[in-house]
Amino acid sequence: MKNETMYFKDEQLKLLDQRKLPGEIEYFSCKNYQDTEFAISDMVVRGAPAIGAAAAYGFYLAALEFADLEKVELKKELKKAAEELIAARPTAVNLSWAVEQLLELALDNLDKSKDEFLTILKNKADNIADSDRKINKKMAENGNTLIKDNAVILTHCNAGALATVEYGTALGVIREAHFSNKNIKVFADETRPRLQGARLTAFELMEEGIDVTLIADSTAATLIRDAKIDYIITGADRIAANGDTANKIGTFMLSELAKNFNVPFYVAAPLSTIDRKLESGSQIEIEARDSQEITHIEGVQIAPDNVKVYNPAFDVTPAENISAIITEKGIVKNPKKKSIAKLFQAY
Amino acid sequence: MKNETMYFKDEQLKLLDQRKLPGEIEYFSCKNYQDTEFAISDMVVRGAPAIGAAAAYGFYLAALEFADLEKVELKKELKKAAEELIAARPTAVNLSWAVEQLLELALDNLDKSKDEFLTILKNKADNIADSDRKINKKMAENGNTLIKDNAVILTHCNAGALATVEYGTALGVIREAHFSNKNIKVFADETRPRLQGARLTAFELMEEGIDVTLIADSTAATLIRDAKIDYIITGADRIAANGDTANKIGTFMLSELAKNFNVPFYVAAPLSTIDRKLESGSQIEIEARDSQEITHIEGVQIAPDNVKVYNPAFDVTPAENISAIITEKGIVKNPKKKSIAKLFQAY
Repeated sequence: MKNETMYFKDEQLKLLDQRKLPGEIEYFSCKNYQDTEFAISDMVVRGAPAIGAAAAYGFYLAALEFADLEKVELKKELKKAAEELIAARPTAVNLSWAVEQLLELALDNLDKSKDEFLTILKNKADNIADSDRKINKKMAENGNTLIKDNAVILTHCNAGALATVEYGTALGVIREAHFSNKNIKVFADETRPRLQGARLTAFELMEEGIDVTLIADSTAATLIRDAKIDYIITGADRIAANGDTANKIGTFMLSELAKNFNVPFYVAAPLSTIDRKLESGSQIEIEARDSQEITHIEGVQIAPDNVKVYNPAFDVTPAENISAIITEKGIVKNPKKKSIAKLFQAY
Repeated sequence: MKNETMYFKDEQLKLLDQRKLPGEIEYFSCKNYQDTEFAISDMVVRGAPAIGAAAAYGFYLAALEFADLEKVELKKELKKAAEELIAARPTAVNLSWAVEQLLELALDNLDKSKDEFLTILKNKADNIADSDRKINKKMAENGNTLIKDNAVILTHCNAGALATVEYGTALGVIREAHFSNKNIKVFADETRPRLQGARLTAFELMEEGIDVTLIADSTAATLIRDAKIDYIITGADRIAANGDTANKIGTFMLSELAKNFNVPFYVAAPLSTIDRKLESGSQIEIEARDSQEITHIEGVQIAPDNVKVYNPAFDVTPAENISAIITEKGIVKNPKKKSIAKLFQAY
């Protein structure tokens, strides 16, 4: 990507404002953790890995703000910041995964000098962001082994560079296949209600020179039936220990069609997206978002006043619908609790 | 409905402009057959039965315009008008069904006086519109026998009063169930790209006082899986002799989910929507519409410049996914060529 998803400079976290793409390329500045919390909840930044890295910097901003306080007060403020950041969006597990790491590190180092304390936390946030880059590249290389030449790939939402610090998860695999000259074609679901496919995935793939065709979400079914799709690859917001996967609303629908018509259905996600504390997908909290996402597009009203709306942001795809989970530590075919647990053994 | 879908007055066809609903209630005036053709192709009026009735009046407008011509010239103009009206949209069969009836009648009556000639054609157009009202009511009564109390019904696109002259097909069944005090709840797919669910179905059901909840199209899958839906009812644009049904893009997706999770999937359509000349759905022409329907909403751009788009307006649901076709002549369960043909015997 020409434009980085995020960078940290002059004690500010700069986020490429994804609410304004593809029309405007603009960076949103987070000067404190509340700005970061707003940016996450309002989807200035989105995508599980990107949210994780942004929240890590958000926590560091809290540390910067409160580092002069007494230890007891500092501890209180940091815990509050961590809580608020984690509450910004409930489904993506990378958010709590990143914030909890920084909070723990902070609490372990309260006795250090202010400079040391801040350096430790800044390094950790940088480390989360840097390792996301490396993880995505490795995941992409792993995933690419599954992709044949001239493949047509369907993807949903945006699991690209814009959803991560760099390179992407599902789109990372697609990039890697493209860069290894496999002549890849992509169908991108527009992904209602927030249109991340139209706004972000189409934009990102066109910038990369990858052949992409945009479709309405409900067009995917006939493409799958008519054997126009070789693979479906999506990202994930949270994966339970048994492989059940929460991802953007509409992912479950695709997985059912894929199953009916024998199209491989792949989920690409880093180990940080796997929440081993949850036995199965039924324990994953699904975020319900504002009805305005359905009734209005760019401020234009497209439904009657006061219509009732049901707007879950995610759905859960059962592990048995997933042909493989692609991670930086390898590929788990027909994912089950045991095979997923094995990924963590060498970790 | 408070506002009629169409009426004919002062030698003009007045169409409730469905491009402007629910924001504005405005009638579009067709002064000649070209206006009618435009109104059909631009979706001022849409829905197979409504298109049929509008086109019948459109043909009558051509007769009005050309009735003073020499017989040879008149014949030529009427054939041209018929051809152009039929070409306005390729998938809905009711369009050619209605226009061909009027053309045949016109050619049979060229020797009549001008007044007689026009009266015959006007009566036929009125008759098509009037019988659509009666047909829908009968279809609704038939369909209502399938609906239990407290049912939750999912519908797609708009197969309502707005898609017909009055009452509706799928929404006719829902109206009938509502009026017989069955405490019906409806989920309406917003139906991208043209958002007929958000704009028209939600509007129409709220006007009627029927409990409706609007959802993104890809949310339907989890509702179906989680047993929140008792029935799915849609309309149809063309049904082949074997029961394969072309309807708004996304219908096939719903039918696959319904099959996977044992939810009855009903199609409500008049006999005029059944095209017995076509053996199966593979022979139905699927209209590809403009890419702007995907890239822009109300003039607002939501995708990158020059992105490739695939935008089929319809898909074909195979007969084996359809639990029953509801018609004015009765209900055909597990539709097959033979059982569908039987409907026409008493016709």
